[in-house]
Amino acid sequence: MKGPVEELASSIGAAAVLADPAAMEPYRRDRALDPAAGMPLAVVLPRSTADVQAIMRWASARGVPVTPRGAGTGLSGGATAVEGGIVLSTERMRAIRVDEATRMAVVQPGLLNSEVKAAAAERGLWYPPDPASFDICTIGGNAATNAGGLCCVKYGVTTDYVLGAEVVLADGRAVRVGGPRLKDVAGLSMLKLFVGSEGTLGVITELTLRLLPAPPLARTVVGWFDSTEKAAAAGLEIASRVRPSMLEYMDRTSIGAVEDVLGMGLHRHAAALVVARSDDRHPDGAEVAAMLSAFTEHGAFDAFEAAGPEEGERFAHARRIAIPAVEKLGPLLLEDVGVPLPRLPELVEGVEEIARKRDVVIAFIAHAGDGNTHPLIVYRPEDAELTERAYLAYGEIMDLAIRLGGTITGEHGVGRLKRPWLADQIGEDLLEVSHRVKRALDPDGILNPGTIFAMPAGAALGEEARAR
Amino acid sequence: MKGPVEELASSIGAAAVLADPAAMEPYRRDRALDPAAGMPLAVVLPRSTADVQAIMRWASARGVPVTPRGAGTGLSGGATAVEGGIVLSTERMRAIRVDEATRMAVVQPGLLNSEVKAAAAERGLWYPPDPASFDICTIGGNAATNAGGLCCVKYGVTTDYVLGAEVVLADGRAVRVGGPRLKDVAGLSMLKLFVGSEGTLGVITELTLRLLPAPPLARTVVGWFDSTEKAAAAGLEIASRVRPSMLEYMDRTSIGAVEDVLGMGLHRHAAALVVARSDDRHPDGAEVAAMLSAFTEHGAFDAFEAAGPEEGERFAHARRIAIPAVEKLGPLLLEDVGVPLPRLPELVEGVEEIARKRDVVIAFIAHAGDGNTHPLIVYRPEDAELTERAYLAYGEIMDLAIRLGGTITGEHGVGRLKRPWLADQIGEDLLEVSHRVKRALDPDGILNPGTIFAMPAGAALGEEARAR
Repeated sequence: MKGPVEELASSIGAAAVLADPAAMEPYRRDRALDPAAGMPLAVVLPRSTADVQAIMRWASARGVPVTPRGAGTGLSGGATAVEGGIVLSTERMRAIRVDEATRMAVVQPGLLNSEVKAAAAERGLWYPPDPASFDICTIGGNAATNAGGLCCVKYGVTTDYVLGAEVVLADGRAVRVGGPRLKDVAGLSMLKLFVGSEGTLGVITELTLRLLPAPPLARTVVGWFDSTEKAAAAGLEIASRVRPSMLEYMDRTSIGAVEDVLGMGLHRHAAALVVARSDDRHPDGAEVAAMLSAFTEHGAFDAFEAAGPEEGERFAHARRIAIPAVEKLGPLLLEDVGVPLPRLPELVEGVEEIARKRDVVIAFIAHAGDGNTHPLIVYRPEDAELTERAYLAYGEIMDLAIRLGGTITGEHGVGRLKRPWLADQIGEDLLEVSHRVKRALDPDGILNPGTIFAMPAGAALGEEARAR
Repeated sequence: MKGPVEELASSIGAAAVLADPAAMEPYRRDRALDPAAGMPLAVVLPRSTADVQAIMRWASARGVPVTPRGAGTGLSGGATAVEGGIVLSTERMRAIRVDEATRMAVVQPGLLNSEVKAAAAERGLWYPPDPASFDICTIGGNAATNAGGLCCVKYGVTTDYVLGAEVVLADGRAVRVGGPRLKDVAGLSMLKLFVGSEGTLGVITELTLRLLPAPPLARTVVGWFDSTEKAAAAGLEIASRVRPSMLEYMDRTSIGAVEDVLGMGLHRHAAALVVARSDDRHPDGAEVAAMLSAFTEHGAFDAFEAAGPEEGERFAHARRIAIPAVEKLGPLLLEDVGVPLPRLPELVEGVEEIARKRDVVIAFIAHAGDGNTHPLIVYRPEDAELTERAYLAYGEIMDLAIRLGGTITGEHGVGRLKRPWLADQIGEDLLEVSHRVKRALDPDGILNPGTIFAMPAGAALGEEARAR
């Protein structure tokens, strides 16, 4: 008699199933490292839509939970294995086809964001969305979380580039939503509902992406400030006066942490650094001049244009590595709160207040142009008392963002970590309606249980729902 | 004892309820002029979200259908009154607030698109989406249909500019989805689901819209062709070589009809006219030069840049009035099919073939840059035999678009007219799943019954479902 793993393997091909605990270990968690992750029954590595359909048919027939997974770079616990469930990794689904004439790419979900960018660039085209993790995160994960990045302030987020998708539903049916068309309003916009649903409504097996022509070379402008208030005000001024293609903010703690890694001569004593970019096609440099004068008017103690693309890229790189750099100070609770842009100074100030009150180190980096910020709370798991204070600060930052009319997550997703705060932001009514949509698409609750929506109690789940 | 209309009126204020058949007549249909429109019980004209909530509470308690309505400029019958139901017109909900610092507008749904554009322009800002009917259609209707327009080829469609909304659900609860934030991934993207749902999932009572800085002055380039094939090929070339901010196509019939109205000296003997625009911020004119050379290479018999913005606007205006101009030839069956751009020449040819086979006049205008086209079938309702052939052609054009990998509706919506073809395009599985989402949000089916989804049979509806 076959066991469940053999039965699963025989329906999708043995090579694609891992069931050894050691082999499965790297697939149990994303970068949120949720300690409550379960040990799955199996990790499956499909290569095709048909494979994914077979897996979902098998799982739905047995009520077995399925956790879809890209590269596991998620920061909210959205790819956390369920005890006795299946982890479905898209890593072997890596086909891509780029069409220059229509500026579109058709990709399988397991390709890295940077590989999509590279394939587009080979044809003189550009896929804009650029999470800082773009060289390690998958395009499928980007779509599942509606990922953001640095260019969003001018170029929008992932959903703005998704024209179509193929999605395998909980019951194993595959549907095509949208397609290679810039305009299509035939029926409900199920496409945009799947984008950002964090694997709770279906498994994305193919994406049709809109590409843009390659952008003009960008010019990078840097402003150094001795107060976070001045820096935040300068950022707001730039965002409202011109149209930066990047507008990033780092505070003293993150500047120091990055300088420790890169040794590029950053001003360690500065309170804040703002890095802005202009890719305006007009060659008169008016946008760069406006950025420089906004820095000066708001009291930058140093403001200059990077000498060229290489120097500009060094500052962008400094910002991109800020999270791993700060991680060297200790494990992080990684925030992703956003506020309407005019409230950004209040958020900066409020987070400083929380850090003082809870006596924790909070590094502060931000996509200053769109109000999406990443307060990084440093803690030590072996120090229970500090860990407690860090978690309190984590929640208080979300409470603050909600009070300021903001969001608990701008680009990382709700996952498991932020679920307890979701109702506070969107309200019980909208959460209830969202839950109805979830049940409409996944009546047995087998798709990524515990993410966005509370873990259902039930025999199919090897583990009790856990209130964090 | 109060009748139902008095009861309704007393709950939302008497001034806002029309119940006289003559007063209600203009609210029974949109521009699709559906002959099956019912006589509603009442037309209600709410001013506030609270009014809309009261109406929906009243209606849901009684199972009375509600047809939400903007200005009634829809072309697919999405605002067709149901016998014994309520028509909810948003025409008195007209507040707007523009914020320059964040480049956002918060608007009630009854404002015209052109009024939103004007309010933005007063602050030096721009709301891009521009359906040709922009000076008579409402922003709420635009969001409900995810309306397109001429600038979409470069600037995207309505959903790309909707950051947030307030929506009153079928049961009268009001929920806020999204908000004044460029990035927000907290929970399922219910916002994007409501956009384009044609009033079947909720009533939009407020929108938060993203604005852009005012665009640079555009330059307009015109190409005249003696064959539709050459014109379509030139359009495809321009769309793939540069990034036009407008790329429009008109055939001989529509050129003649517009010339009859405007007398601006259009070439009546031409087979097709292509109007392209560049708003590239680079002043070197390379984009304009590329457009001109694409016209010449593809055999335009005349190609030139408009002498200035005024002349350029005359050509854009000529394209915008094409539908009313062709309407002077007779009532129209108005198509809205779209295809992937490389299939555009096949669509043009296929529609010509259908016109010959069915012996009907079909004028052809298109947003050539995004593959969205409007074949306009001229008929005479008093000629039953011609009308029959016109309807056959209408269906055959949708069948053709589907065969070419396209859509039955690029920007007008499914409404009632296109419902019979929806499953052919999106498939029975996706339609079934969409229906589950509909039922999750509107279990009693009172919101805009007959639009997108088949009219439910049931006592609450004064009229049987009608298979068109």
